[in-house]
Amino acid sequence: MGQEAANQRQPIGVFDSGVGGLTVVRSLRKTLPGEDVVYLGDTARVPYGSKSPRTVEKYSLGCQQFLLARDVKLVLIACNTASANALPALVAASPVPVIGAVEPGASSALAATRNGHIGVIGTLGTVRSGAYATAIAARDPHAKLTALACPLLVPLAEEGWIDDEIAVLAARRYLSQLFDRDRAIDTLVLGCTHYPLLRDVLEQVARELAGHDVAVVDSASAMAEVARELLGSAANRRNVAGRLDCFATDTSRLDELAPRFLGEPLTGFELVDL
Amino acid sequence: MGQEAANQRQPIGVFDSGVGGLTVVRSLRKTLPGEDVVYLGDTARVPYGSKSPRTVEKYSLGCQQFLLARDVKLVLIACNTASANALPALVAASPVPVIGAVEPGASSALAATRNGHIGVIGTLGTVRSGAYATAIAARDPHAKLTALACPLLVPLAEEGWIDDEIAVLAARRYLSQLFDRDRAIDTLVLGCTHYPLLRDVLEQVARELAGHDVAVVDSASAMAEVARELLGSAANRRNVAGRLDCFATDTSRLDELAPRFLGEPLTGFELVDL
Repeated sequence: MGQEAANQRQPIGVFDSGVGGLTVVRSLRKTLPGEDVVYLGDTARVPYGSKSPRTVEKYSLGCQQFLLARDVKLVLIACNTASANALPALVAASPVPVIGAVEPGASSALAATRNGHIGVIGTLGTVRSGAYATAIAARDPHAKLTALACPLLVPLAEEGWIDDEIAVLAARRYLSQLFDRDRAIDTLVLGCTHYPLLRDVLEQVARELAGHDVAVVDSASAMAEVARELLGSAANRRNVAGRLDCFATDTSRLDELAPRFLGEPLTGFELVDL
Repeated sequence: MGQEAANQRQPIGVFDSGVGGLTVVRSLRKTLPGEDVVYLGDTARVPYGSKSPRTVEKYSLGCQQFLLARDVKLVLIACNTASANALPALVAASPVPVIGAVEPGASSALAATRNGHIGVIGTLGTVRSGAYATAIAARDPHAKLTALACPLLVPLAEEGWIDDEIAVLAARRYLSQLFDRDRAIDTLVLGCTHYPLLRDVLEQVARELAGHDVAVVDSASAMAEVARELLGSAANRRNVAGRLDCFATDTSRLDELAPRFLGEPLTGFELVDL
């Protein structure tokens, strides 16, 4: 009883390589509105997507350590690249449960597909890891996954070029490579926290290239659902909205970028050194 | 004499946030072929261009410290963002001369312009610093500088999308903002080590928007020239090609990207932790 009461009052920790992970916080605050949340964006070392597994693991462990020091009851890895490359190391180093982005994303994709043909787009680090292929094969060995790295989509999203000619041309260049490899794909996983900002363009181009409807899924809401199930009675069910404390390792562009991903105004970030 | 002999044998140190600075090494090896060069790319924390001055300064000091520990006789800051934000701190922390990218680039621009109307494009960090404006005003108070940040050009260069429709559209979107602010610009400074890969497209789009020829300059060859002058008799004038030792803080994509910037094959990078 004492343990559970303590748990209820502890915050949930979320980290990401940058501000894109605020899409996960957004889902979390919808699903578990009473929870306090501590968010850390490693904006000094963003992006993780182009870096090697060794570097991603090292930086991710530092982020998690920061959250654990703030007494979180649960860690959510909002960053797909960190989830894909560092989940085992993070789980091993954490006394509290750790939820990655890949497994919930894979489950959402399998729930959405009608024919088992799934496409996933993400960073170089996420695709190279093969984490989505592993997660999907473990759940449905008959599903066919096609993965593609799309390095330009993060800077496009950050530049706000999300619904114009350049966005359409970039989406078409990437997705045509994906559909050339499997024309039957009926479900597309946005395997990077930034991509939901480009959802409309990606959905439209995917439909045009496939010649049929393509379901577009991402990890954010699935991760919040897993958090709710996992917390069970340790969830904070009060009727007051929880606190959101945001930390970042660099302040550049935060005020411009963060509200786009969070979908609500922010009181600000506190700068920390990792 | 003994001091000079020792100096001749010491290598020149060059650092950059990533692999783009190899364009400076390329110029250096043309201008001072007998010199040994030690190169450090901080590829684990690349890019610097979107980060705050405080973070850029901290990382730059770490890079320089690594080079000084390898007994270099001279430090070249190939990265425009680091030069623009950290030069005073780097000079203060170094017992050997330090050459930044901004001053040589500013001098090249003033040598090239006929009417004193200069445009500079670079990262957010370089433009926000105002370093080019300061360097140009110090040399010619009548020159008029217009600066613009172009965040998408680095990922375009790294993706190799340098001579196609997307490159042209991105160049046109950025440069039209620049020429809208000063139609008379006759000289464009490529204030980022990555941009020379997009030189043809930028030159063509600039000419088309301006309605007249636009000289395009970058810092690399000017930096090598400053190094040659600065070394004087301490330059290594042997007839054997100098060694090139390359170090990086992350190995991802090095084999793919590095030769494009260096313009010669590489024997490889040694991984280091900073």
